[in-house]
Amino acid sequence: MKIAILGTGGVGKAFAARLTGLGHSVMVGTRDRSATLSKTEKGSFSEFMSQNPSVTLGSFAEAAAFGEMIINVSKGASTRDVIKAAGEANLSGKIVIDISNPLDFSKGMPPCLIPEFSNTHSLGEEIQKMVPDAKVVKTLNTMWNGLMLDPNMLAGGNHINYICGNDADAKGQVIKLLQEFGWRVENILDLGDITNARATEATLPIWLRVYGAKKTGAFNFTIVS
Amino acid sequence: MKIAILGTGGVGKAFAARLTGLGHSVMVGTRDRSATLSKTEKGSFSEFMSQNPSVTLGSFAEAAAFGEMIINVSKGASTRDVIKAAGEANLSGKIVIDISNPLDFSKGMPPCLIPEFSNTHSLGEEIQKMVPDAKVVKTLNTMWNGLMLDPNMLAGGNHINYICGNDADAKGQVIKLLQEFGWRVENILDLGDITNARATEATLPIWLRVYGAKKTGAFNFTIVS
Repeated sequence: MKIAILGTGGVGKAFAARLTGLGHSVMVGTRDRSATLSKTEKGSFSEFMSQNPSVTLGSFAEAAAFGEMIINVSKGASTRDVIKAAGEANLSGKIVIDISNPLDFSKGMPPCLIPEFSNTHSLGEEIQKMVPDAKVVKTLNTMWNGLMLDPNMLAGGNHINYICGNDADAKGQVIKLLQEFGWRVENILDLGDITNARATEATLPIWLRVYGAKKTGAFNFTIVS
Repeated sequence: MKIAILGTGGVGKAFAARLTGLGHSVMVGTRDRSATLSKTEKGSFSEFMSQNPSVTLGSFAEAAAFGEMIINVSKGASTRDVIKAAGEANLSGKIVIDISNPLDFSKGMPPCLIPEFSNTHSLGEEIQKMVPDAKVVKTLNTMWNGLMLDPNMLAGGNHINYICGNDADAKGQVIKLLQEFGWRVENILDLGDITNARATEATLPIWLRVYGAKKTGAFNFTIVS
């Protein structure tokens, strides 16, 4: 499948590498293609592209136009700008997987949530509101990115991933992609419509503190009953 | 130990019964003792007292004065009034275990958090601010009350309980009480000071949705790493 990834950071690179490894065609979107390519130091996106030659780079709009499915991995504080730049026309009718979190680093560590996207609203809902004809599916945002893409590295893959969104068929297609990553259906809990992103984004405060206590992101929550 | 429980609801009754069963002296606090005792129907506190004759009932202030340790099980929307009625003088210098959650049922189900106690504030911190000389310890608020008092009913007791508060010695004493309930030290994660109540209270949105999906409160989260 043609997949667009919005964001060139660590999470974007991890998704691009994993998805090309699974045989998908990947275009990563960035704000300014020339600016991104002009950086060539260790850890830069240029270095990543030289190691992953099948990954292409475009503007947010070019990537969104390319993708049959779009994955938003942008920082929460930038997500609205990124979706705007991607363009409503390029996203409409498509599945937009949102794994971003509305973290606010301005008030010290650990970050709180960006107030306007907390408690009674969420980034997932905001994207759905910005692009009403896209099928926004929120998932994977409650864990470390290494685990998103390889759940079996921990506890035989038996830990929890939530999914929510308004379109049942879109969620079904996303679950198929999650299965390619190694997720088993019984560990994916469908919470219902996109308003439930309020709850999954609200797990970040406790995630960040457990991360602080464990000094590693290689953990996840699971449910015992 | 003499223990005061602030709140006569289902959680208050469950704590009173469990604590007297463990040999503690329990006084439950209520807003209006006569009004509480005037109700005698099935499920009333009067009925509970007839079945648990060693439990006594007093005003919030009487209970707080009686207790060497105080457990706040009031509804989050009432907690500030309850603490005020209990009285700063009756709480100062004592351990106040806060298991309340700031749930706001006014905007439909599932409830959101009371905005002023969400994200950058919490009920645990609010109580600490109202009674600066009390040793507020937040714990047990992230699960169903049956499990708080009998963790071994699930998964051999291997699921997570968080604790936070500013006073290390107070947390140590609360952990001893938790051990009486059946909690093992390795399943109690100390997150640090009382500001971390922001995170444990913020787990309610996901807890409520998992509860909705499972149709039972007999579950809890655990951490795999």
